[in-house]
Amino acid sequence: MISFQTSPEQYKHWKLSFAGAVATLSMDVAEDQTLAEGYKLKLNSYDLGVDIELADAIQRIRFEHPEVRAVVVTSLKPRIFCAGANIYMLGTSSHAFKVNFCKFTNETRCAIEDDSGHSGRRYIAALNGTASGGGYELAIACDEIYLVDDGNSAVSLPEVPLLGVLPGTGGLTRLVDKRKIRRDRADVFSTLAEGLKGKRAKEWGLIDDTFPTSKFEELVAARVTKAVELHAAESAEDGEGPDPGGSSPSTKSQASLGRTGGIRLGPLSVAQEGDERNYKYVSLKLNREQRYADLTVRGPESNLPTSVEEIQQLGDAYWPLRAYRELDDALLYLRVNEPEIGLLCLRASGNADHVLAVDRTLAAQGEHWLIREILLQMARVLRRLDLTAKSLFALIEPGSCFAGNLLELALAADRGYMLNNPDEPVALWTSELNAAALPMSNGLTRLQSRFLAEPERVEQVLGHAGGFDTEAADAAGLITFAPDDLDWEDEIRVAIEERTSLSPDALTGMEASLRFAGPESMDTKIFGRLTAWQNWIFQRPNAVGPQGALTNYGKPTQAQFDYKRT
Amino acid sequence: MISFQTSPEQYKHWKLSFAGAVATLSMDVAEDQTLAEGYKLKLNSYDLGVDIELADAIQRIRFEHPEVRAVVVTSLKPRIFCAGANIYMLGTSSHAFKVNFCKFTNETRCAIEDDSGHSGRRYIAALNGTASGGGYELAIACDEIYLVDDGNSAVSLPEVPLLGVLPGTGGLTRLVDKRKIRRDRADVFSTLAEGLKGKRAKEWGLIDDTFPTSKFEELVAARVTKAVELHAAESAEDGEGPDPGGSSPSTKSQASLGRTGGIRLGPLSVAQEGDERNYKYVSLKLNREQRYADLTVRGPESNLPTSVEEIQQLGDAYWPLRAYRELDDALLYLRVNEPEIGLLCLRASGNADHVLAVDRTLAAQGEHWLIREILLQMARVLRRLDLTAKSLFALIEPGSCFAGNLLELALAADRGYMLNNPDEPVALWTSELNAAALPMSNGLTRLQSRFLAEPERVEQVLGHAGGFDTEAADAAGLITFAPDDLDWEDEIRVAIEERTSLSPDALTGMEASLRFAGPESMDTKIFGRLTAWQNWIFQRPNAVGPQGALTNYGKPTQAQFDYKRT
Repeated sequence: MISFQTSPEQYKHWKLSFAGAVATLSMDVAEDQTLAEGYKLKLNSYDLGVDIELADAIQRIRFEHPEVRAVVVTSLKPRIFCAGANIYMLGTSSHAFKVNFCKFTNETRCAIEDDSGHSGRRYIAALNGTASGGGYELAIACDEIYLVDDGNSAVSLPEVPLLGVLPGTGGLTRLVDKRKIRRDRADVFSTLAEGLKGKRAKEWGLIDDTFPTSKFEELVAARVTKAVELHAAESAEDGEGPDPGGSSPSTKSQASLGRTGGIRLGPLSVAQEGDERNYKYVSLKLNREQRYADLTVRGPESNLPTSVEEIQQLGDAYWPLRAYRELDDALLYLRVNEPEIGLLCLRASGNADHVLAVDRTLAAQGEHWLIREILLQMARVLRRLDLTAKSLFALIEPGSCFAGNLLELALAADRGYMLNNPDEPVALWTSELNAAALPMSNGLTRLQSRFLAEPERVEQVLGHAGGFDTEAADAAGLITFAPDDLDWEDEIRVAIEERTSLSPDALTGMEASLRFAGPESMDTKIFGRLTAWQNWIFQRPNAVGPQGALTNYGKPTQAQFDYKRT
Repeated sequence: MISFQTSPEQYKHWKLSFAGAVATLSMDVAEDQTLAEGYKLKLNSYDLGVDIELADAIQRIRFEHPEVRAVVVTSLKPRIFCAGANIYMLGTSSHAFKVNFCKFTNETRCAIEDDSGHSGRRYIAALNGTASGGGYELAIACDEIYLVDDGNSAVSLPEVPLLGVLPGTGGLTRLVDKRKIRRDRADVFSTLAEGLKGKRAKEWGLIDDTFPTSKFEELVAARVTKAVELHAAESAEDGEGPDPGGSSPSTKSQASLGRTGGIRLGPLSVAQEGDERNYKYVSLKLNREQRYADLTVRGPESNLPTSVEEIQQLGDAYWPLRAYRELDDALLYLRVNEPEIGLLCLRASGNADHVLAVDRTLAAQGEHWLIREILLQMARVLRRLDLTAKSLFALIEPGSCFAGNLLELALAADRGYMLNNPDEPVALWTSELNAAALPMSNGLTRLQSRFLAEPERVEQVLGHAGGFDTEAADAAGLITFAPDDLDWEDEIRVAIEERTSLSPDALTGMEASLRFAGPESMDTKIFGRLTAWQNWIFQRPNAVGPQGALTNYGKPTQAQFDYKRT
């Protein structure tokens, strides 16, 4: 079983250090510490285990070190920044694992951009050596890229020319959509196995600058200082309090940066017994024979504190943070460890008033860094749900608590079933958080995505006083079906049976197409277009067949292609 | 060899009739008239041959019958509108053929929407029987959908539940993005093999209305009349001249509709000899051993007339119409008949002044229906080029004529090579048409797509006086490489060899990702996201393996799925 929980003390591949407003995240992959047998992580190449640590580090910087304004991503290996995803690992992995591996690394790169875009931390890739493939894709997820000019180091995306696959972690999309590299140059770069060195890489916009070896550390440090100052100034405008000294980042006190009181993210305790996996607020029950799982999120037990000080004291025990971290872990567990589970039946239980009170607090205090981070984390977890290749049914029954932020679970579902029985009333509730705080990857809220045809319904639903009973929810368009108590059990059973009998591949493609209507963003392009093409290529004999490029990489044999174009 | 040329006299599967402002396109597929062996086209199911006729009919309505304001798409078979793409044809086709078949049907649906969106013709799907799969996808490409209420007829997308693949012709995207069906309802509909009948289909927005059998013809005719009147009124506002009578469409004279003088689209003459395929203005030379083709477009031989009357007299001999029809045919030929050709070397030859003069005429007369249709046709052909899964290099040499509309070929290319030799000057020229008239599928011009990072360059390039010599073209960012005469031959040869040595699948995915940066449209979603997912699924054992759903459709054996979700 692959676990997604880790912490800096346990890191095998990264060093995370802090100096005032600057965090440094140094890659130093331990060759032998692999997640599976059969490959060595040479040259800072990575497998899923390396990326789990990276995702954890980014998360911890956000919650544990709010004073950080710039994150330097670099390598401790000489002459190499990162060689990308390990080819032998890819060559020996199943199709499903490759796809889920790429999805997770993509989400981690998006988390970097989410932090940069919303929390004002500047990510600086200090390429002290070559960055190839996934290594360059990590760099391009950062805001600034500096490459050492040592006559040898280059940036490259050698996947197409060397491996017959695509850069699988957003590289192509970010080339033309983020860095807006001219498409003919992107074409040349993406077919050039050896990549480009400093001067031309800078000229083409692939990096921001290149510095000679002897001055690399000093000049990168100067850029980092500049980034910190810039962001301190921006934060001052935001009312977060200026940095009075204007001194170098490492001498700034946390207090002067206006962001203090980082909270520690402790380990999540989870009890796995047989087909159940229980966290404090999240439970998973696997019905393996029927290929579906019940996923239940519980609301807080009582009314929670409303002041930021009290919330900071609660730290990672605060319900929205804990519950969504658990949900995140459960989703990742399901994706990687339970591929045969094709359907999640989503339930929410608890007291809606408590959940709605939490939402009021979060909405009211959203300017505070911690509350903002909690909201951004909830939004990321919900996007992880949207992007999970499993069918999602929301089951809205007596005792359920799809209120406010938990209503997003029902809105993320492919279908919602709500019991229609006057003797056992059920309800749905909206809150402030359904209005804007928890956007999907396409930039719309789930309500906006739902009501593309009738946008006025969004305001109607948000303005509705009190809960929606089943009839009102149906009339408002919030649910798909409202079986009565006589039909409920049969209808749900049949719906589950039907769903899990369908082709899992067709469902994946269908859900990816129906869940993301409306506008597109760089993220949806990466998870929709680029991922779909990569999945296609990952199936092709030219990549993974006995004579495919991925299969034959590093062997004395050479790839033999079927040159038919499709 | 599959030919894409046809004409109404040759149609086997469609009847095209005209009554004043109304064209009726009736599907009546001849079971035995298939493009290949091994299947029968029962129940108005279709293969590529049926869709080639549909594409031709739409094209002819636009050029030959400008008076038409409404196109009724219906069936001559009782109780069935269209059963979609023939499953046995799909089951026996190669992967490459399936993919190219879907691409062409997608382009044909987009051509319907292009006509509706830009030429003001209203497409009305009169479903006198069940429309399933591709049949409903044809309907949803129309503006209005009416379904007979006979207690039996339904609309459906049974691909996911019955065949384990996706609706391959834009259905899912149009459900949620065009008709903006609520995503949970789209989910239910797309997994319901039997589909939905009139009442619920209307309630969910899948059709616009449903009429009882006895009144179907009459009520559809009323909607058609309304559509014609609406569009006549809109055209009046556009200055095209109103319909003074306001009478029923069939009694309107062509003159009263302000659009007269349709021109006949004659057959294209093409000489195929060995590895050459020569049209009047387009030549194709296949270098089969090296897996690339030279594709040359020649400009007009002389200065062409500038008045609409003279152009109407020239008819289909008018250069921009003829040359782009030939280019279209050449591209379709290459896609379907020459799958191993992986690279097109694009050349343009002729006199730039003549081409630029044509562009001035087209730009000045764009309000006239014929000129507008010619421009829209050029734009569609260029989009077909963008969407062709072959690498594109533009070779800009002495005697070349990449001017105005032909410059778009160079801008569509993945790379441009321009000779840099003072003794043999070469140039590129822009015209009015590079500014807006020939948009890509993403809604941007090719110049805008090229200069996403520096949008001011678009205006600079368009404002440049005279041609760009090699240095100026390089400085302006219009070309990728400018080898001198000593290097030219070697550099081109090596570039071709390198390109055609790469994995054709990786190139397809890479090009689809790099060619369409910037905004997304319904079209790019269909050709990017949906097509990529469909291609993936078309490779999966769950669809096409010995136990796959597509393989086992209609057999006594049943599909057996590997239920792992990816």
